[in-house]
Amino acid sequence: MKPDIEGLKAIVGKNNASDEIADLYVYSSDASVHQAMPSAVVRPKTHEEVQEIMRYADKNKIPVVPRGAGSGMSGHAVPIDGGIVLDMKRMNRILDIRPEDVICKVEPGIVNDELNRVLRPFGFFFPPTPSSGNICTIGGMIGTNASGNRAVKYGATRDSLLGMKVVLANGELVTLGTNTRVEASGYQLARLMVGSEGTLGVVVEATLLISPLPKYRAMGMVNFSRLEEAGRAISNIISAGVVPSMVELMDNVAITAVNKALDLGLPDVAAIVIFECNGMVKGTVDHDMESIKKICEGHNGTGIKVSDDPGEMARIYAGRKKLFPSLSKYREGLACVSLADDMAVPISKIADCVHEIHEIAKRNNVIMSAYGHCGAGLIHTKILMDPTKKSQWEDAKRAVKQVYEYVHRIGGTTSGEHGIALSKAPSWKEEKRDSLEMMRAIKRALDPNNILNPHKLMDAPDDWTTATALRYQVKGA
Amino acid sequence: MKPDIEGLKAIVGKNNASDEIADLYVYSSDASVHQAMPSAVVRPKTHEEVQEIMRYADKNKIPVVPRGAGSGMSGHAVPIDGGIVLDMKRMNRILDIRPEDVICKVEPGIVNDELNRVLRPFGFFFPPTPSSGNICTIGGMIGTNASGNRAVKYGATRDSLLGMKVVLANGELVTLGTNTRVEASGYQLARLMVGSEGTLGVVVEATLLISPLPKYRAMGMVNFSRLEEAGRAISNIISAGVVPSMVELMDNVAITAVNKALDLGLPDVAAIVIFECNGMVKGTVDHDMESIKKICEGHNGTGIKVSDDPGEMARIYAGRKKLFPSLSKYREGLACVSLADDMAVPISKIADCVHEIHEIAKRNNVIMSAYGHCGAGLIHTKILMDPTKKSQWEDAKRAVKQVYEYVHRIGGTTSGEHGIALSKAPSWKEEKRDSLEMMRAIKRALDPNNILNPHKLMDAPDDWTTATALRYQVKGA
Repeated sequence: MKPDIEGLKAIVGKNNASDEIADLYVYSSDASVHQAMPSAVVRPKTHEEVQEIMRYADKNKIPVVPRGAGSGMSGHAVPIDGGIVLDMKRMNRILDIRPEDVICKVEPGIVNDELNRVLRPFGFFFPPTPSSGNICTIGGMIGTNASGNRAVKYGATRDSLLGMKVVLANGELVTLGTNTRVEASGYQLARLMVGSEGTLGVVVEATLLISPLPKYRAMGMVNFSRLEEAGRAISNIISAGVVPSMVELMDNVAITAVNKALDLGLPDVAAIVIFECNGMVKGTVDHDMESIKKICEGHNGTGIKVSDDPGEMARIYAGRKKLFPSLSKYREGLACVSLADDMAVPISKIADCVHEIHEIAKRNNVIMSAYGHCGAGLIHTKILMDPTKKSQWEDAKRAVKQVYEYVHRIGGTTSGEHGIALSKAPSWKEEKRDSLEMMRAIKRALDPNNILNPHKLMDAPDDWTTATALRYQVKGA
Repeated sequence: MKPDIEGLKAIVGKNNASDEIADLYVYSSDASVHQAMPSAVVRPKTHEEVQEIMRYADKNKIPVVPRGAGSGMSGHAVPIDGGIVLDMKRMNRILDIRPEDVICKVEPGIVNDELNRVLRPFGFFFPPTPSSGNICTIGGMIGTNASGNRAVKYGATRDSLLGMKVVLANGELVTLGTNTRVEASGYQLARLMVGSEGTLGVVVEATLLISPLPKYRAMGMVNFSRLEEAGRAISNIISAGVVPSMVELMDNVAITAVNKALDLGLPDVAAIVIFECNGMVKGTVDHDMESIKKICEGHNGTGIKVSDDPGEMARIYAGRKKLFPSLSKYREGLACVSLADDMAVPISKIADCVHEIHEIAKRNNVIMSAYGHCGAGLIHTKILMDPTKKSQWEDAKRAVKQVYEYVHRIGGTTSGEHGIALSKAPSWKEEKRDSLEMMRAIKRALDPNNILNPHKLMDAPDDWTTATALRYQVKGA
């Protein structure tokens, strides 16, 4: 049924609800390959408004898709069944900052970097640092258990999330979790909400564990002519007891792409590893950097650059920072498509996995780049393909399937930080086949009318290429 | 219905199932005040045996209470509805240790200290360190999200648990979570299992994140004549960016008790704070110890002792280590009873809370000691009372209720690491009243016949003093 737009305007005000085609189009896609039109867009300002909207939607069985910045790469915010897109960005207040308790309370629409700008004068920060930090919202980060390049030291969103207020499908407001670092107070429902991709409830407030800002920071860069040696070095760093705040890998495709796009003149090697250490004591940072340097040298790492100068560190990280946009410039006519984009594997398997990804790409007439937060076992890949050719989508589909079959075989998981939604659902359903029924039972128990972001995850279509329209003009052949 | 003991013996072997009164009595209580007789005790060795037992129990609607060491203080392992107690201690193998991936895989019956003994030669340890580490099992620690005195640095069990295999109520075996540090692969069901107290499934395997053993360690001890100053010092330490590996508090009752029991000659002050720092670099440990010392001096801490000598550190911690048994010796005729024993509060509220606990004890004719892992906001209390007097149980019940009302008022939570089960359920139900239905819906979805540790948590009786028989001879009056 089509939502009653006047009724929705009565809840949130006439400027914050719309069913005009231009608005609907804007909310028909996110950073994924998918596209589908909603019937209405609603932008609530308070949890009471969210409760009213949910009560209305539940009563009338209208799908509701909660949305943060729309930076998700797997189709989380794409309203596959139409219905209401709930834009949470107006609920962006910071409600409380309590350094004495090392926590803060925020609304879900606050942007990650903005929160950190406000926390900085207090001497604190919120550790998860997705590359999309300048646009992504805390609500979206909770939805996918986002982490980013510092997960190797600080973990993911789940590790810095203590409690939350959530509006359930029926409009009820519940308080989950606590304000405390430890808890053993029954079912950890706040942790269940993390990574549930808007299918179990709408987060309207979050209590976050904040960390004191480190006083010192240093960064290094090292080249490897052989992937296996880069992989072994990374595994040794993590198991040596050094605690780097970042260990990033760039493969040769990534290196070529940033050289072409940014003219950085990075060496044409198999892999570049970028590492960072931070802390309150300069001696420790220096000691850790030295240990990492030694380990890399022990694995034939060459051309090691190390610096604690902000400008020089920015230059060291420049290539990695601009990698995603650079990949689109890798070759004329190839687009950089987000599929199979963030698998996580046991740390010792990183090199094997990157190698296999390259082999699979070759076999399937696409180019795949592998890079990412390898200190936490996280590998990002992008598929470089001609999205106008139907055949290339078939190539991509085959490549994605083969990559995940390999990832699962070596004990890895489908998604490390971006989530499942639509694009990754087919392979993920293979990985989780013995617990899908458990997830469906929980979904039915908490959302009996199946209105919250329906047909994602365990209920997603089995073919992502036809799950929705694609955000590309496919000419066929 | 009474379980068919011959059928159970056919599954686990005749020596591993019993309905003899002596065996049943042994399994009728844990470290809580509660007592109830099971109908049978079964000790499986494999997950296939657990699956068979669960299929049988589910078909015949027989309650099953999974049990580790029985060191729980709130009644988790007490079979309030009779049925089968499932003793998991025979499933105690370490299945895999992978330093290169910083993980290990274990069965749930392995004892925490035993696991750490085996990990030590590899240079690793499993961070959660409950005081009962020498007897408690990993399965039990998962059941209550146990943490211990190092939670301030390493977090709780949930923070070091990556994945698990679980047998559900219907006997199905499911694999939850991953082998990886980060994951965004759908509902975080492994995290949901943590703290579910055996009500949602039987953990038969766990994948744990292990940490490299620190090379250096130092410990300190400081006296405070005023509780508020101890509390402010602790809050300042945590928010200063120092990362101690331990911050313990002992109140005057605790000090008196250990002096009496162990003749340690600790000063008769309002509070003693014991702190520890560890790490890979001596300079950092020294720097952090010095920072903590300065903060304590800034809050009028006196008699500061600091040492990195193992013998001296053992002496510093001796009183805290033996505190629990010592409390029973506080006064002739008073028993040390575990009730309201592990609330967690925002760190800045610790002193207020300890003070209020003393006031409430006075008002209710009992003695309460407050101590514990205050760096993580965790306060342990014990009630010293005459358990043979009916009136004292009424006093205790009133005191417990008032303590929790206060804890909830200041934004704290009912349990920080011991769990809810029976003793804490009444007050916990007040704290979680708006999410109890959500928990019941999940419980019904995963255990429709309500056979897994039934009538605990949200389904526990409203009066713990009559929830079960008490483990004490109450003479009345």
